[in-house]
Amino acid sequence: MKLLEDRILRDGKIFPGDVLKVDSFLNHRIDVGFLCEIGKEFHRLYQNEGVNLILTVEASGIGVACLAAAEFGCPVVFAKKSKTINIGDNNWSAVAHSYTHGTDNTLLVSKDYLGKHDRVLILDDFLANGCAATALAEICKQAGATVVGIGAVIEKTYQKGGDTLRKQGFRVESLARIASMSPEDGIEFC
Amino acid sequence: MKLLEDRILRDGKIFPGDVLKVDSFLNHRIDVGFLCEIGKEFHRLYQNEGVNLILTVEASGIGVACLAAAEFGCPVVFAKKSKTINIGDNNWSAVAHSYTHGTDNTLLVSKDYLGKHDRVLILDDFLANGCAATALAEICKQAGATVVGIGAVIEKTYQKGGDTLRKQGFRVESLARIASMSPEDGIEFC
Repeated sequence: MKLLEDRILRDGKIFPGDVLKVDSFLNHRIDVGFLCEIGKEFHRLYQNEGVNLILTVEASGIGVACLAAAEFGCPVVFAKKSKTINIGDNNWSAVAHSYTHGTDNTLLVSKDYLGKHDRVLILDDFLANGCAATALAEICKQAGATVVGIGAVIEKTYQKGGDTLRKQGFRVESLARIASMSPEDGIEFC
Repeated sequence: MKLLEDRILRDGKIFPGDVLKVDSFLNHRIDVGFLCEIGKEFHRLYQNEGVNLILTVEASGIGVACLAAAEFGCPVVFAKKSKTINIGDNNWSAVAHSYTHGTDNTLLVSKDYLGKHDRVLILDDFLANGCAATALAEICKQAGATVVGIGAVIEKTYQKGGDTLRKQGFRVESLARIASMSPEDGIEFC
């Protein structure tokens, strides 16, 4: 998505440790008009898949998910992150490791809001190691729901998450695909 | 807002300890079409205030803020919650106590995204003790920004937050105002 690549080149900031900061428009300040365009693109890609639920994880996936869901005319469920193992009886759950924070989070989704009749589009801001998306797909499997696709605003294709998920048969679509990135040489898209 | 009161009466669940669960439409599963109507109502109330930024706090405020911002045509900034005191040089910050979780969070907003030219509408899902809204207003004060209003989807008017903020001169608007609530007697709106 050219509009997104241009925005990343203009506003993204690269830091050592493979960090791309896009918090001026994506995950601290949210450029809502821009995310509406992102939402339209996800809808164009997945409009024929019978999506009836968008699943994401708090906090930075919620904006993307809500503005895409406005296009699909469907609800959003966001998984909650918990540090505790005690998840209660009424939750689907899976563990996701965060490389950014070096911690494990248990992702929780109430059994009341995800079930076997759901056709789910998983959305998030970033896809890198794929830990969050893998955990969300595992939660869908527990619920008997169908994952019709996994969408990311930005994919780091040099990390393994996207390819691993594709090999598992998921339809993964990323709107900007970064082939390489460094503070010295900037960003190369695929 | 009649539509909202009806929805709370239909889907809200009251638990001991003054807990109203509305996670079927507001803060776990998000009924995006419904939140668009909520967003239109906030826009109707504050449309003449020159709002150029909606400020909220992760995670459950983000959906409300984004769908309202789509009406205002402005961006959202969501404050991040941090357990650490080490906030860096580039953040406005204020401490908010969470009665729900019994913890203190430091709310952080980058100095890059909030400044003296901003006319800010603070939005959140709940207004009870007012700790989050008070901390967000304090952050706006640090930034020299103007708070044109504080909006909540649901206010518990029997708690002190709303009145305290009104006495400080803020224009506080809540779309559903709960006068009393208990598992035995249900909900009374103002």
